[in-house]
Amino acid sequence: MTIRTGVVGAGIMGADHAENLARNIGGSTLACVADIDGERVKAAASALGARAVTDPLELIHDDGVDAVVIASHDSTHPELVQACLEAGKPVLCEKPLASTAHEARRIVEAERAVRDERGVSLVSVGFMRRFDPGHVELRRALAEGGLGRPLLVHGISRNVSAAPGATSESAVTNSAIHELDAFPWLLDSPIAEVSWVPGVLASSEAGPGLQDPAFMMIRLRSGVLATLELFLNAGHGYSTQCEVVGERGTARVVEPAAAAYNVERKNYVEYPADWRPRFAEAYRRELQAWIRHLLEGTPSSLARAEDGLRATLAADAMVRSMHDGGAFTPVAA
Amino acid sequence: MTIRTGVVGAGIMGADHAENLARNIGGSTLACVADIDGERVKAAASALGARAVTDPLELIHDDGVDAVVIASHDSTHPELVQACLEAGKPVLCEKPLASTAHEARRIVEAERAVRDERGVSLVSVGFMRRFDPGHVELRRALAEGGLGRPLLVHGISRNVSAAPGATSESAVTNSAIHELDAFPWLLDSPIAEVSWVPGVLASSEAGPGLQDPAFMMIRLRSGVLATLELFLNAGHGYSTQCEVVGERGTARVVEPAAAAYNVERKNYVEYPADWRPRFAEAYRRELQAWIRHLLEGTPSSLARAEDGLRATLAADAMVRSMHDGGAFTPVAA
Amino acid sequence: MTIRTGVVGAGIMGADHAENLARNIGGSTLACVADIDGERVKAAASALGARAVTDPLELIHDDGVDAVVIASHDSTHPELVQACLEAGKPVLCEKPLASTAHEARRIVEAERAVRDERGVSLVSVGFMRRFDPGHVELRRALAEGGLGRPLLVHGISRNVSAAPGATSESAVTNSAIHELDAFPWLLDSPIAEVSWVPGVLASSEAGPGLQDPAFMMIRLRSGVLATLELFLNAGHGYSTQCEVVGERGTARVVEPAAAAYNVERKNYVEYPADWRPRFAEAYRRELQAWIRHLLEGTPSSLARAEDGLRATLAADAMVRSMHDGGAFTPVAA
Amino acid sequence: MTIRTGVVGAGIMGADHAENLARNIGGSTLACVADIDGERVKAAASALGARAVTDPLELIHDDGVDAVVIASHDSTHPELVQACLEAGKPVLCEKPLASTAHEARRIVEAERAVRDERGVSLVSVGFMRRFDPGHVELRRALAEGGLGRPLLVHGISRNVSAAPGATSESAVTNSAIHELDAFPWLLDSPIAEVSWVPGVLASSEAGPGLQDPAFMMIRLRSGVLATLELFLNAGHGYSTQCEVVGERGTARVVEPAAAAYNVERKNYVEYPADWRPRFAEAYRRELQAWIRHLLEGTPSSLARAEDGLRATLAADAMVRSMHDGGAFTPVAA
Repeated sequence: MTIRTGVVGAGIMGADHAENLARNIGGSTLACVADIDGERVKAAASALGARAVTDPLELIHDDGVDAVVIASHDSTHPELVQACLEAGKPVLCEKPLASTAHEARRIVEAERAVRDERGVSLVSVGFMRRFDPGHVELRRALAEGGLGRPLLVHGISRNVSAAPGATSESAVTNSAIHELDAFPWLLDSPIAEVSWVPGVLASSEAGPGLQDPAFMMIRLRSGVLATLELFLNAGHGYSTQCEVVGERGTARVVEPAAAAYNVERKNYVEYPADWRPRFAEAYRRELQAWIRHLLEGTPSSLARAEDGLRATLAADAMVRSMHDGGAFTPVAA
Repeated sequence: MTIRTGVVGAGIMGADHAENLARNIGGSTLACVADIDGERVKAAASALGARAVTDPLELIHDDGVDAVVIASHDSTHPELVQACLEAGKPVLCEKPLASTAHEARRIVEAERAVRDERGVSLVSVGFMRRFDPGHVELRRALAEGGLGRPLLVHGISRNVSAAPGATSESAVTNSAIHELDAFPWLLDSPIAEVSWVPGVLASSEAGPGLQDPAFMMIRLRSGVLATLELFLNAGHGYSTQCEVVGERGTARVVEPAAAAYNVERKNYVEYPADWRPRFAEAYRRELQAWIRHLLEGTPSSLARAEDGLRATLAADAMVRSMHDGGAFTPVAA
Repeated sequence: MTIRTGVVGAGIMGADHAENLARNIGGSTLACVADIDGERVKAAASALGARAVTDPLELIHDDGVDAVVIASHDSTHPELVQACLEAGKPVLCEKPLASTAHEARRIVEAERAVRDERGVSLVSVGFMRRFDPGHVELRRALAEGGLGRPLLVHGISRNVSAAPGATSESAVTNSAIHELDAFPWLLDSPIAEVSWVPGVLASSEAGPGLQDPAFMMIRLRSGVLATLELFLNAGHGYSTQCEVVGERGTARVVEPAAAAYNVERKNYVEYPADWRPRFAEAYRRELQAWIRHLLEGTPSSLARAEDGLRATLAADAMVRSMHDGGAFTPVAA
Repeated sequence: MTIRTGVVGAGIMGADHAENLARNIGGSTLACVADIDGERVKAAASALGARAVTDPLELIHDDGVDAVVIASHDSTHPELVQACLEAGKPVLCEKPLASTAHEARRIVEAERAVRDERGVSLVSVGFMRRFDPGHVELRRALAEGGLGRPLLVHGISRNVSAAPGATSESAVTNSAIHELDAFPWLLDSPIAEVSWVPGVLASSEAGPGLQDPAFMMIRLRSGVLATLELFLNAGHGYSTQCEVVGERGTARVVEPAAAAYNVERKNYVEYPADWRPRFAEAYRRELQAWIRHLLEGTPSSLARAEDGLRATLAADAMVRSMHDGGAFTPVAA
């Protein structure tokens, strides 16, 4: 048996998901791709032997589509997730689940209603750090106990350059949100309060309204303090680092590098230019786990609607801290 | 469309392949598993929803099986590959394709006969280093030219402990054979001659008849000299290293490690105990490329019967050098 | 010509300095060692062919002593430095120069009075990070400009276990004080304000009155934000890390390790148990630079009395922040 | 008490030694520098406050010189060492001690005659790998036993570019000779036989008469097999690597790097352009150990005349192997 999937959005992220679902994921076939750009979707779908549509609702209601991946513009996420729920179809929505806590909460409630009837979880959220081999191994190491009780986490998230129009707020809600999901997942404790440290020197590349780099502190309910450097215009390479400091030792993510070079007086490994090579394996594993979950009904290891809501609430608190001089700000329940 | 696969052999290697083909490979389903041990094959197959048989020929001739993976005892490989060829079914045979050059040559000829009629290649050989991300990146780097003309290769292949009954000869034909395929593939030049250096000090763990570690030299037709340390009882961990030295720089494989640790005065990454974690990704990519090739008819990137024959001929020459005091020994054409 | 040195204090630090000055520093001989423990000083001095005294003032006034190193208990530093100034002898005082800003300021003023007369600087402070090859290379890299304008610094300082009786305050004044000198030296900008982040989870090893680990923020007048994890009971090893993040790249200190090992499934380098192996080379270079300065009158690269005062003022501000809920607290001029 | 030293040769190596002996070595002063180039020696000596002479014998017989370092042209070494022996002055001779085994043997015999009378060793040879922290730690690790019985050694020695006029023979006698001393010292077993592997592909930079890279095998009397890649025109950087493979684990030299960088998509450490930064610490420790030995009469850890002779004999055997098609060639006793 296979899951016939549909992907909404034929941009970079959607095209990658579509190719994976068509070719590299066991138990999956790609039935349909939707994008408002008719040319783009035709090119993407035909190369993969899938149907192309311009209306995402047509895809969602297609009888030949069993499950939906949403990788269209952020603003469309809540409405499309709701449509999937109404159609009774499992959906994997790229982050963020919703731009406001209100919308995220409505999705959680809508899913609960469906879940009550059918006993399954329908909404998954694309927080792929949960499938990054490095983050997974850190979580395993913490659970095994060799590091002792965790005390601190240091995260670093660097991009080569910020997306056009990025603001201090969108840096939190679009980028830091990954760590706002990953840290509580890694440490198994929800976020209690957050602080966005003001007055950090900005890169010359940062446009108006963008504090870059930003430095944040995230305190979990367990008491663990996590710190996060988020630097969108880091220039030198795409990098996602994480070190957990425990009472008896530390563990840190090793970023994937297949080869090392000795050239021109340097002994080096290369950084990717963006997130795709860095998280290619995480995305594949995430999709495979999702399909496996749908086929076999085993417990899902993907982030769920509640996780998407929690991350949005934490991002809200972070933006409030930003507007409030950096005070530690509690995350709403 | 999917390829309905059958796996012959439900040992460690076969079980891993079966699980991948059942769960993790796009375009594949697992139809059947064969193993002479009835209990073992039932356990393996039922967990994956596949049929279990004890006769490999039954699997090969099963109309519900489109393609076959052979991971049974080395001695069975030639006969089972021939049976697949007779049945007109694509086969991916674990290395070695055959224990003797004679048998390997017969397979090449048999495949050629079939190929003449149908225009496709039917036999693939499981030399998974060709799909290891590190080896793939080295090959790409060499092709791109930044390292300059290649001059030397240094390979190291270490196991934790030798298989029971291992001999100096089987160390070549079962273990070093990976490099005897990988080096010419990496450097795009066939092996001209080989030397098995005599008189190396043996590990206390080496049994009678086993020279361990062994040190070998492999000269390609291009003139590149490759060296290989093969150490089956290395004890400290499973490791496969490779560095290519070019006129302008070098590139070396980075062995995969997802996390690094600081514990008990050590800053470390861990070695696996055997080849499975080291090459898990290579095996998955190999199977995926095979299925993709079968589905789409695109050129195969797997080792072919001719490669299997060439590696066997190189291993033969290496064993002759071993029995001849280490002289450089030409590889038969 | 050689400088005849005297060392006050025959504890671990003093004994190391004495041995270096007796054996490993060009242009230096060791004339005398002083310690209130008569047995200890006799043992230390006789092994190095030096005179032993129990009264530090006797050493300072000894005509056979040209220059003095002070490595006795912290509480004795100001009085002994003043005695050296009165005797007109150059002094290298281990950190801290003084426990209070008042005392440090008095030393600065006393030295200025002497300097007015003789035109030389007499007081140096043992902030050895200024001679650590890693920190020196970071400073050089920043000056050369390849990293672009510096924006952030991340420091980590970990010990295996806290000294008996350590408190949150002494962790700042005795340990973090190294970074309070190193960061402004590295970035060439004085500290403007500091914050000691409250509410960090404490290690089980931390005694009453000791917040361990501690997390601090240090803002330089240039706007650069430096962060510091100080973890005295880190258990896993002694480690001093530093990364500078610039607009075009980052540089980090590589901790010295002469060899790497593959043993028992681990690929590792070792951590030292305490600061001495970590900073052995820095201490030697510091002493050599000091002797060179005294012999040749070339500009000193050691920390001076003013630097000692500035570090003490920054530590004072950090302790005030600690007692004030973590607010950013300006450093007094 | 100090040793008043004289340095013969004011080229790169001699000037570095002179500066160290004048400034950075405890117990040493620099009295005199000799070089046939009058301008060069005046410049070198005056900057260090030493006397300049153009006749090395004048330096050797100078009553104000207690001990002599020879860093002049290789061809002058034997005669100058003999002159030191006749003058009864300790001498540290840069490698090679002599270009022929005959000359080296004469020095050994001459020193023995003097030693018989005075009970001390007068001749040291500048094999500085014996003081490289990495090599020293490997030797210590082997002695401690954690690696088990040593079986193999892999050495790599790469330069950026060969000296003008370098030949295959001089590559052995001038460069590989370091390893011909280091390997037996490291493993505590003399060299039994050597092989210079013929037919290695040459770099385009290699001139006529120069096989570069070269690959050699060195078998110790203990049975350990050492391999050596020597690549003078490696281009990408100066690098001296060594890994010892034992029954229970391996240890490898970590090349010194004070900082690591993230710039332009690369995470790197830098290679030096030549041997001086790589072995700066080794040279300093070697000179310090020599002065210490002369001052205190403690056992010398420097290579001695006999070691210089042994390395020359091994180089002779390697050149014979080179001229004899690569056969394993015994080293003369």
